[in-house]
Amino acid sequence: MENVRVELGPRSYDVRIGSGLLPRLGRFALNLYAGRKGGRAVVIADSTVARLYGKSALASLAAVGFDSRLIRLRAGESSKTLATYGRLLDRLLSFRPPIDRSTLIVGLGGGVTLDMAGFVAATALRGLDFLACPTTLLADTDAAVGGKTAVNHRAGKNLIGVFQQPRGVLIDVDTLKTLPRRQIANGLAECVKHAVIRDERLLAFIESNVPAILACKPAAMTRLIAWNVKIKAAVVSADEREAGERAHLNFGHTIGHAIESAVGYDKIGHGEAVSLGMVAACELAVNRGLLSREDASRVHDLLECLGLPVKRRGLNPAALWRIMLRDKKNRGGKVRMVLPVGLGKAKIVDEITKEEFLLCCVVHGIKIRED
Amino acid sequence: MENVRVELGPRSYDVRIGSGLLPRLGRFALNLYAGRKGGRAVVIADSTVARLYGKSALASLAAVGFDSRLIRLRAGESSKTLATYGRLLDRLLSFRPPIDRSTLIVGLGGGVTLDMAGFVAATALRGLDFLACPTTLLADTDAAVGGKTAVNHRAGKNLIGVFQQPRGVLIDVDTLKTLPRRQIANGLAECVKHAVIRDERLLAFIESNVPAILACKPAAMTRLIAWNVKIKAAVVSADEREAGERAHLNFGHTIGHAIESAVGYDKIGHGEAVSLGMVAACELAVNRGLLSREDASRVHDLLECLGLPVKRRGLNPAALWRIMLRDKKNRGGKVRMVLPVGLGKAKIVDEITKEEFLLCCVVHGIKIRED
Repeated sequence: MENVRVELGPRSYDVRIGSGLLPRLGRFALNLYAGRKGGRAVVIADSTVARLYGKSALASLAAVGFDSRLIRLRAGESSKTLATYGRLLDRLLSFRPPIDRSTLIVGLGGGVTLDMAGFVAATALRGLDFLACPTTLLADTDAAVGGKTAVNHRAGKNLIGVFQQPRGVLIDVDTLKTLPRRQIANGLAECVKHAVIRDERLLAFIESNVPAILACKPAAMTRLIAWNVKIKAAVVSADEREAGERAHLNFGHTIGHAIESAVGYDKIGHGEAVSLGMVAACELAVNRGLLSREDASRVHDLLECLGLPVKRRGLNPAALWRIMLRDKKNRGGKVRMVLPVGLGKAKIVDEITKEEFLLCCVVHGIKIRED
Repeated sequence: MENVRVELGPRSYDVRIGSGLLPRLGRFALNLYAGRKGGRAVVIADSTVARLYGKSALASLAAVGFDSRLIRLRAGESSKTLATYGRLLDRLLSFRPPIDRSTLIVGLGGGVTLDMAGFVAATALRGLDFLACPTTLLADTDAAVGGKTAVNHRAGKNLIGVFQQPRGVLIDVDTLKTLPRRQIANGLAECVKHAVIRDERLLAFIESNVPAILACKPAAMTRLIAWNVKIKAAVVSADEREAGERAHLNFGHTIGHAIESAVGYDKIGHGEAVSLGMVAACELAVNRGLLSREDASRVHDLLECLGLPVKRRGLNPAALWRIMLRDKKNRGGKVRMVLPVGLGKAKIVDEITKEEFLLCCVVHGIKIRED
């Protein structure tokens, strides 16, 4: 088992990673409250995760004295709406006896569940304690750490939400065994992202452990996730509200979000879109002389080897550009993007031009040029 | 003009109070951003306030270079719903060019507008800067300071929301001239509340300035509002997230909220309900020996003199008690209430019993016993 501390002053918290942790959820939750016995805990999970792990989570909470309840939401990105948010609140606020400010919300599942459950926790009774139990590799390495909560809007992804840190994060790597291979690849895109922007040694670790990682061996996954959580925690500690270097975590995401928006959130995985976005961003970096052709190829080849897409037909680069112009991180109408500077470093570039972007795409698909 | 600083470390802000301030809104907004020229400002106001002051606010913002827009909501407590919140976001996120994180949200109006606009600002793009321009005495002395944002739920009032401080507050006392007398009385209930829990001298000031206050004379209102803002600011500074003494601000509100919920939010003014709640809470305090009969009468008589209700028929005390049990500030099923300890001090009492509460009410109305 590994423990990573996310340092955020009075909002600091622990991320615990290992095998066999979910049955110890109740104990972990109880330890957050010195001397407290039980209270109320509400687990929010999608129907798939509820079927697989709901009983185990509730039993673990009940065993230490929590009055524990479960709220289900429909699986999938299409649940990440204000309508679903309203229904979750309806359920939460209709419990008898009514919830109070000592009620703990537990998000159990992937990124959609954690984003939604986190937003519910942040806004019900003006803020309840939140505990994140991610069950996907993408959520382990991305959504679980950093305190971003979110709901999509038809105008774009994650346009509604708040920053609210969880009280703790519990990652049971055993839950990855029930995850479809495509979902594992989705999470690996975030791992490659962290490696490219912060730590070339992580890139080397992934390269030399592909079989163990793709098979979700507990030891390899514990090490991989802890490494990624450490990187993300360091970035978030330095810049909680995304005023500066936290933006580096958006490497691959500006283009990735535009692809998700163009294709439809339910038609392409987040990591798949980010993989395409990273390949394109590397290409932009090569074009600007920030990254060598060899390093760009290394990223490209690793993504491909992990089962992630590195090209896709049927995308309109000009349409992607229009969507990118709407990104909430832009200021003053310019597109901001994160580009790698060698491997293990990154910088924010504020003035990516349309011409530059189109140069890295060919018509009929975001197939990156490989001259 | 008076200026009150709300001290909250990095979230500190100024509250400016005086006559003729709304036409200087643009200048005030610009001063929040050192060296910045304009940008985007979105004013949220209900249809009544938009008609009276919308043009002046927009013109003032435009004069200093803001690209300023207006979003209207329907007037009244019935607008304080997740459905209206969703529609406000729809409008905000559909602007072209799209809003970004530098966009400023201005809430112009009463408590409903400020609570809703504040929640929109707190959650759009995970948090935009918010400037509050209250136009009612209730909002001047209550909603504008403290960073509470809120949406009602059918399970109760203000059950959804976050704590998010504004960047600044601008109070133009001239806007009170267009306010119905009943609304002035609503705000005066909060002023009496502040006096009872914190400052007997404020009670004396109100007692000796009733005609000027009821006529909304600018000098009297500026002094009255600044005094109240100072009291509220001091309480909020000491306890931003309502962990301790900020709860004193709930004096009269536990019973008041229950009355609003029982009668219907659109059928009784917030201050009217709080007035009834304060009379009942004073009675509980007399019953416990915390307050003299003379002091309770002084509060009762001042409220009556200000045009506020001190009794009301047709309320069922047992039903009120059931609603009070649902209050989000309760912990562990007990009813918590704030009682005055003499005039100018208050304490939190955690274990008000049903019997004690009913003793202070008579059947068929919350008419307080005056033996």
